[in-house]
Amino acid sequence: MTETVSSLATLVGGRVLGDGQKRIVGVADLRAAGPEQLGFVRDQKYRDAARTSKAGALITYEELDAAATQIVVADVGLAFARVALHFHPVPRARTHRLHPTAIVAEGAEIEAPCEIGPNVVVGRARIGAGTVLMAGTHVGDGCRLGRDCLLYPRVVLYHGVVLGDRVILHAGAVLGSDGFGYAKDGDRYVKVPQLGGVRLADDVEIGANCAIDRGAMGDTTIGARTKIDNLCHIAHNCRIGQDCALAAATCVAGSTVLGDRVILAGHVAISGHLEIVDDVRIGGNSCILRDVSKPGEYMGDPLMDKKKWFRVLGAQRELVEMQATVEALQKELAAIRDGK
Amino acid sequence: MTETVSSLATLVGGRVLGDGQKRIVGVADLRAAGPEQLGFVRDQKYRDAARTSKAGALITYEELDAAATQIVVADVGLAFARVALHFHPVPRARTHRLHPTAIVAEGAEIEAPCEIGPNVVVGRARIGAGTVLMAGTHVGDGCRLGRDCLLYPRVVLYHGVVLGDRVILHAGAVLGSDGFGYAKDGDRYVKVPQLGGVRLADDVEIGANCAIDRGAMGDTTIGARTKIDNLCHIAHNCRIGQDCALAAATCVAGSTVLGDRVILAGHVAISGHLEIVDDVRIGGNSCILRDVSKPGEYMGDPLMDKKKWFRVLGAQRELVEMQATVEALQKELAAIRDGK
Amino acid sequence: MTETVSSLATLVGGRVLGDGQKRIVGVADLRAAGPEQLGFVRDQKYRDAARTSKAGALITYEELDAAATQIVVADVGLAFARVALHFHPVPRARTHRLHPTAIVAEGAEIEAPCEIGPNVVVGRARIGAGTVLMAGTHVGDGCRLGRDCLLYPRVVLYHGVVLGDRVILHAGAVLGSDGFGYAKDGDRYVKVPQLGGVRLADDVEIGANCAIDRGAMGDTTIGARTKIDNLCHIAHNCRIGQDCALAAATCVAGSTVLGDRVILAGHVAISGHLEIVDDVRIGGNSCILRDVSKPGEYMGDPLMDKKKWFRVLGAQRELVEMQATVEALQKELAAIRDGK
Repeated sequence: MTETVSSLATLVGGRVLGDGQKRIVGVADLRAAGPEQLGFVRDQKYRDAARTSKAGALITYEELDAAATQIVVADVGLAFARVALHFHPVPRARTHRLHPTAIVAEGAEIEAPCEIGPNVVVGRARIGAGTVLMAGTHVGDGCRLGRDCLLYPRVVLYHGVVLGDRVILHAGAVLGSDGFGYAKDGDRYVKVPQLGGVRLADDVEIGANCAIDRGAMGDTTIGARTKIDNLCHIAHNCRIGQDCALAAATCVAGSTVLGDRVILAGHVAISGHLEIVDDVRIGGNSCILRDVSKPGEYMGDPLMDKKKWFRVLGAQRELVEMQATVEALQKELAAIRDGK
Repeated sequence: MTETVSSLATLVGGRVLGDGQKRIVGVADLRAAGPEQLGFVRDQKYRDAARTSKAGALITYEELDAAATQIVVADVGLAFARVALHFHPVPRARTHRLHPTAIVAEGAEIEAPCEIGPNVVVGRARIGAGTVLMAGTHVGDGCRLGRDCLLYPRVVLYHGVVLGDRVILHAGAVLGSDGFGYAKDGDRYVKVPQLGGVRLADDVEIGANCAIDRGAMGDTTIGARTKIDNLCHIAHNCRIGQDCALAAATCVAGSTVLGDRVILAGHVAISGHLEIVDDVRIGGNSCILRDVSKPGEYMGDPLMDKKKWFRVLGAQRELVEMQATVEALQKELAAIRDGK
Repeated sequence: MTETVSSLATLVGGRVLGDGQKRIVGVADLRAAGPEQLGFVRDQKYRDAARTSKAGALITYEELDAAATQIVVADVGLAFARVALHFHPVPRARTHRLHPTAIVAEGAEIEAPCEIGPNVVVGRARIGAGTVLMAGTHVGDGCRLGRDCLLYPRVVLYHGVVLGDRVILHAGAVLGSDGFGYAKDGDRYVKVPQLGGVRLADDVEIGANCAIDRGAMGDTTIGARTKIDNLCHIAHNCRIGQDCALAAATCVAGSTVLGDRVILAGHVAISGHLEIVDDVRIGGNSCILRDVSKPGEYMGDPLMDKKKWFRVLGAQRELVEMQATVEALQKELAAIRDGK
């Protein structure tokens, strides 16, 4: 694929300085970029690298004092994403291909074009056009997948999982496994059948080896454009809002509700039956045991205002010394009390 | 499947009020239930919903002032589990079906009826009647599976894994991977072959994408009816008792022994070579670095009595203020000392 | 396989006491060992068991007052690993076997002998001699695998993953999934294509159900002989040194760099863009939010000197009492101030 600098500038809403007809074939790191590649100058720190770069053109945060053709944009990170996606689009099915080893149940409705890879197993499901099922994916009975979805190898959808359009599921992700629900009969656990489903809205992306349980009665749901990193656990009946980002190894217990635009940094644990409102941002390794009812930045165990948590960490570092001080004060006061 | 209210009452040991011959086809949420479905009234909070419910019958904790047919029981949660399992039983093989793409080693002993799905690979293993191996499961040489087991897609059993009866393994679970055992040769790690196995007793259930390592020399074992949630790690030579529940993302290091009826809430980390006695309940996100030798409720990092941990969390929230107070006290005492 | 005691003594650099021609067929626990098996006496604690053991020979830390044939070595653990590996070597391909259900792309270069198991999918990749791909593994286009690698069932390598020689990947591990990289367009996340790769050096071992993301632009790399336990997450562009050991459920965020010989105990969380120098050892359940620039033993949240952290844990256990003491001191001082 080849593009002119001008057409890329249009793609990213940028202003061209220099030769708009120059032809570009891809993106690269500033130091590695060649004369047909686009480099990216995110801020001042990269100015020197930009000057010596052999990149055919630069996307930059401001006009540079350099000979290279430039595209000036307001947000270099976003421009990079757009240009890189243009050269490296998310795989979509363009031609209908059903690998001879794929096993598709009678009654499955597969809208052409789809790419169904080797050893894929599809139950009586409905799959939208453009969707790619890579090798060894498993789509259970009653699943409904939207258009242009991408399932990487070995993804497992239990029965009745619903995906919107353009959903990306990374390898090893499991959706629709039974929630961890048991009744007690004396000391013994009796399984509570998990009768709900899992529904992901459009443009959701789920990381490798995640596990998202089906609801006990209603559904576990994940809102549009929410992104979930590797090895996360979403328990039964959670409702995650839209435009959220959950970083790796995060664990949300049952029936917890996250609003929109919630950010959870990695390795966060959240109790069940909680409500986290819109626009809450949680720092890494936090533990959430209570509702979070106001937007803001939080962190810690116990969870608190993020800035306060950093001060608490500072105090914890000196906790042994503080303990010694308190003991010394006790003795001193006792001495005063005893009139010494 | 259709049942009369009377026969369901017998199933759950409940008392019928109203028409025992009414026919029921399934369970539903109180608000969604129709005239052939059973709704559940767990406690007072659901009384209003029960009154307006269109459910054909209600299972309830006490006699309700409502027109509906009722089954009164002592434990609605347990009754729900029993009735729901009746209408939605855990899949068992009723007819012997070996998918043509399944690959079964010569010498494997498979007791009919079993359901062996597409792309399943079975080594020289022994598999009990009633067991279902869903698509793409892998059963290594020397494995022995009991009767009525259920392995969801892509489960991997390394060689020599032993399962009791009615074991459920969710998708992506791996049993029998090598324990993390190395000797040091100078700076270099030398692999210690892991020669033990993994044994699960009857009625164990393991969540999606769990990893349970084989023992170094003896076996890693999990007792009857113990339930393990998604994304848990059980290291080599752990011995987990019976009737335990380990919630998601919990991590038990090597050779640790858990007694019976131990409950670990989610995201708990346990060091190796520890002993946790019977009837210990650990709160979420705890870190266990020492033996727990008395039954009870514990939580925290450091682990302590659960109620005490909540008070410690309260003190931590005010740690910065406490530090300031201590400093003020120091100054004040110094002033007194200096006679000011 | 049968070996003489003498040849095993040579293998481990040990000194024989007794019958060097005795024939040994394997290793076993001291209590279970029979007359053709080798038992191991690691230290004084095992002396009694050694005396009553029926083992054909003993590898021991010192000359024992026992009738058995003995091999005395400096490091029993290392000797055990060497002997056990001799009797139970890591599987390597000796004969070229391509299972008829394996699907190998045209253009793939597979050096004989390799063992390619059932339902394996190999893209246009290069695979070295001696490598074993167990059932259902997936090797994407452009991957390069060294010699004598071992991929357990259901491992997934995305495109362009590079493995050195003798790399072991346990079941369900995913290498090369997209890093968690997004730009913001207002509230919406826009995917940043992940254009780098993953490179593992020689003798790396990766645990079951791990996820190792590809780099955003450059590669995610793991150094020679580094061992990673189950359910770990390594984010995009991490660079892990050589001879490291990362225990289970550890989570390293993006672009973080670990030196050589770094040890992370289990359930550790590390922020992104950090640098951890050589010879750092981190205790379990720690949270690393800053660079670690000096070798040593660390632990905690906040991370600190390990011994200090244990003292902080001690102080935390008494935090509520300390708070009460501080309040009492305040009152007492106020009383003094008020002249009472």
